[in-house]
Amino acid sequence: MKKFTTVDDINDLDELILTAKKIKSDPFVNSGLGKHKTLGLLFFNPSLRTRLSTQKAALNLGMDCIVMNLNTEGWSLEFEDGTIMDGDKAEHIKEAAQVISQYCDIVGVRSFPTLTDKEKDEAEQVINAFTKYASVPVISLEGATEHPLQAVADALTIQEYKTKRKPKVVLTWAPHPKALPHAVPNSFVKIMKLSGYELVIAHPEGYELNPEITKGATITNNQDEAFKNADFIYAKNWSAYNDYGKILSKDMNWTITQEKMELTANAKFLHCLPVRRNMIVSDEVLDGDNSIVIPQANNRTYAAQAILTKILENEN
Amino acid sequence: MKKFTTVDDINDLDELILTAKKIKSDPFVNSGLGKHKTLGLLFFNPSLRTRLSTQKAALNLGMDCIVMNLNTEGWSLEFEDGTIMDGDKAEHIKEAAQVISQYCDIVGVRSFPTLTDKEKDEAEQVINAFTKYASVPVISLEGATEHPLQAVADALTIQEYKTKRKPKVVLTWAPHPKALPHAVPNSFVKIMKLSGYELVIAHPEGYELNPEITKGATITNNQDEAFKNADFIYAKNWSAYNDYGKILSKDMNWTITQEKMELTANAKFLHCLPVRRNMIVSDEVLDGDNSIVIPQANNRTYAAQAILTKILENEN
Amino acid sequence: MKKFTTVDDINDLDELILTAKKIKSDPFVNSGLGKHKTLGLLFFNPSLRTRLSTQKAALNLGMDCIVMNLNTEGWSLEFEDGTIMDGDKAEHIKEAAQVISQYCDIVGVRSFPTLTDKEKDEAEQVINAFTKYASVPVISLEGATEHPLQAVADALTIQEYKTKRKPKVVLTWAPHPKALPHAVPNSFVKIMKLSGYELVIAHPEGYELNPEITKGATITNNQDEAFKNADFIYAKNWSAYNDYGKILSKDMNWTITQEKMELTANAKFLHCLPVRRNMIVSDEVLDGDNSIVIPQANNRTYAAQAILTKILENEN
Repeated sequence: MKKFTTVDDINDLDELILTAKKIKSDPFVNSGLGKHKTLGLLFFNPSLRTRLSTQKAALNLGMDCIVMNLNTEGWSLEFEDGTIMDGDKAEHIKEAAQVISQYCDIVGVRSFPTLTDKEKDEAEQVINAFTKYASVPVISLEGATEHPLQAVADALTIQEYKTKRKPKVVLTWAPHPKALPHAVPNSFVKIMKLSGYELVIAHPEGYELNPEITKGATITNNQDEAFKNADFIYAKNWSAYNDYGKILSKDMNWTITQEKMELTANAKFLHCLPVRRNMIVSDEVLDGDNSIVIPQANNRTYAAQAILTKILENEN
Repeated sequence: MKKFTTVDDINDLDELILTAKKIKSDPFVNSGLGKHKTLGLLFFNPSLRTRLSTQKAALNLGMDCIVMNLNTEGWSLEFEDGTIMDGDKAEHIKEAAQVISQYCDIVGVRSFPTLTDKEKDEAEQVINAFTKYASVPVISLEGATEHPLQAVADALTIQEYKTKRKPKVVLTWAPHPKALPHAVPNSFVKIMKLSGYELVIAHPEGYELNPEITKGATITNNQDEAFKNADFIYAKNWSAYNDYGKILSKDMNWTITQEKMELTANAKFLHCLPVRRNMIVSDEVLDGDNSIVIPQANNRTYAAQAILTKILENEN
Repeated sequence: MKKFTTVDDINDLDELILTAKKIKSDPFVNSGLGKHKTLGLLFFNPSLRTRLSTQKAALNLGMDCIVMNLNTEGWSLEFEDGTIMDGDKAEHIKEAAQVISQYCDIVGVRSFPTLTDKEKDEAEQVINAFTKYASVPVISLEGATEHPLQAVADALTIQEYKTKRKPKVVLTWAPHPKALPHAVPNSFVKIMKLSGYELVIAHPEGYELNPEITKGATITNNQDEAFKNADFIYAKNWSAYNDYGKILSKDMNWTITQEKMELTANAKFLHCLPVRRNMIVSDEVLDGDNSIVIPQANNRTYAAQAILTKILENEN
């Protein structure tokens, strides 16, 4: 693997999940693989699970980690080409990316979307600048349009908990007070399509995701209908994609409650976290026996470690 | 040791101090004990000594360290149960604590009190949430009501410098421009009581500490009287406990001066640092031969390393 | 080497550059030298290259690294002696420096100048306080008046790219929107003088650097004249030294353009980064074949590693 910035970079999902499961059963099996290798983790935005689990994954492989919050610890970056840099931006991404990649063997980058400039967000300006200018492999720690490390953890978790070959997986929108990115649902839809599971996407009207990504998936505006016979409920909020970055609804009828869960085939409940209790999901469901959000978060380590392993082994 | 969030978690102080002294004489004696173990250090508040010395202690044991400033690098946390999370708090402590503890083998947490909500502070909301939800041992890096790692360093320091079996130790309030927590004096009082030394607490009227903690100690409002025959002077400011979090006095007659120190039996001067010069203590005393605040701070490493050792060895 | 806070601490530049080149050819040759040694990196100001490359250098030597942003993660520091600390400053540098140096084997400090108080800046208050109070070697990660690690990387880079024994090196002022420190040009001038190369300093009138530092160098206000036959162009902005910290000019005629570069003997272009594109230097020059700013930044690792090696070996 030469980079990992989108689910599209996965060559063989089954093999990747198998690698992650092997790692999970013996996290230190390859503790010499990363010797004298440095992982640089660059954050333009907050992070808890990704920050900690990716460090843990690197340490399990014997790598060294250098973590940096670019906005607060470094220089504010310019991303536009050709500008006269006479304002507040002290350094151009061209130099920053080239320079940083000389100090690291793998560079991870987190950069959220603006949610106001669709074109810029879809261009994945920050992650792509690193991919373009870095001399080493780049991994996304969540970009503007994808969160592929999360998706691998999601796929691993479903693989572990599924009781049939082809479970029914429902990705459902749920209400949230703020406008959220599309990165998690996008990557989840992509990896579910790779998995070959039955995928249903449920959301209120106007919350259609990028049709290029959801192409082929079943889409409905009827959450109750979607939940019927579901084996997994993956709840997530996102802002509108067509009316870009807008909040069109905070309809609490879309909150995942025990009543809703009873429509399913005793489905497991998933969420990438952080989750807004009693907005996205009721306390009862989140704290209930069918909630697997905590083991799902635990799998972030093994997902990241599988990807780092693939990159270090320079396999496809 | 299963956790270390209060001095009450110490089973055998003498043995713990002995362990710390052994470590100090050979800090790398157990440099393999922490192999493949990760210490997560989570800060909700500023820290210098605790931050650095606990990292150093972990490194001496061969542990990996992951440090995170939760307020600035992660998500703002909700601590109340049952709320509808439609405001600024992005993640509930329940998930955060469970998730983080999956990435670490030991979790350290620093969380200062509000000094406005006594009930909340006494409940040690943050540290106790971690203790409750984490699946691994939790250590306090200073909580709302205790700073037990500081107390172990204090006890180690007095043990090293005492010239009699049962020295007279004076904990004295001293003036400060801001309202400060009770964590350091509380833990110091507790560990002095465990030590069996003669403890006198001196403070202006109204500055009584929690009587459950000070029960059995000699308490006086006469600093001069307290200093007579003292072998150790431990200066510290705290805000009022009864009139909770209030500053009742900035009386500079309580500042530790050379004149005051001359009332003692050539006492050593202690302070947990950071210290306000010429408020808490005069330059003359702090820079004088009897000041042992620097070796006291050095002992923070060995105190932390002794605690981490006990936890890693899973001893009581 | 007992400390490295100024280019003046270099005893034998040729030997130091040779050490750096050897390290570059085999960065892990001394990967056991730093075993059980901790490098503390303390930042009062932003840093990207220095932060990352110095960590990388330490890791290459097998050292542990503890990084701390003192302003945001620790306590605000008091630097004046004899004050009554009743304001916002929670800790005196005297304690902080002594304490921190007990947890580390080498301490690195970054502290920019005020550019308003010349006397304070020239006294290198922060770095010198650490040098004075620390019990371990101190290295500058850029002080108020010098950036010696940058200078070593600069000298290494010129050494690698020069095609004659004594190249002509031009340090030229270039325009910038903000008032910048003198640390980089000061250290560069010092190390060029040690190198024995032909050094020409070009700047607009009023931008004279500290004459004690530039003594002996050729100084001109004619940039075009300076560029003739130049083998290396080192561009850098700085604020006025005499009219301390002031911006006297933003004259874009001093920007390094392709046209200007054509005056030279096919000179290589150097800059310490971060660089303001189309202020300091045109895109064309910076992205051109003669720009060596990226390998120059890469050399920061080997410069730092050479210095750490000298300190660890306690050589002169």
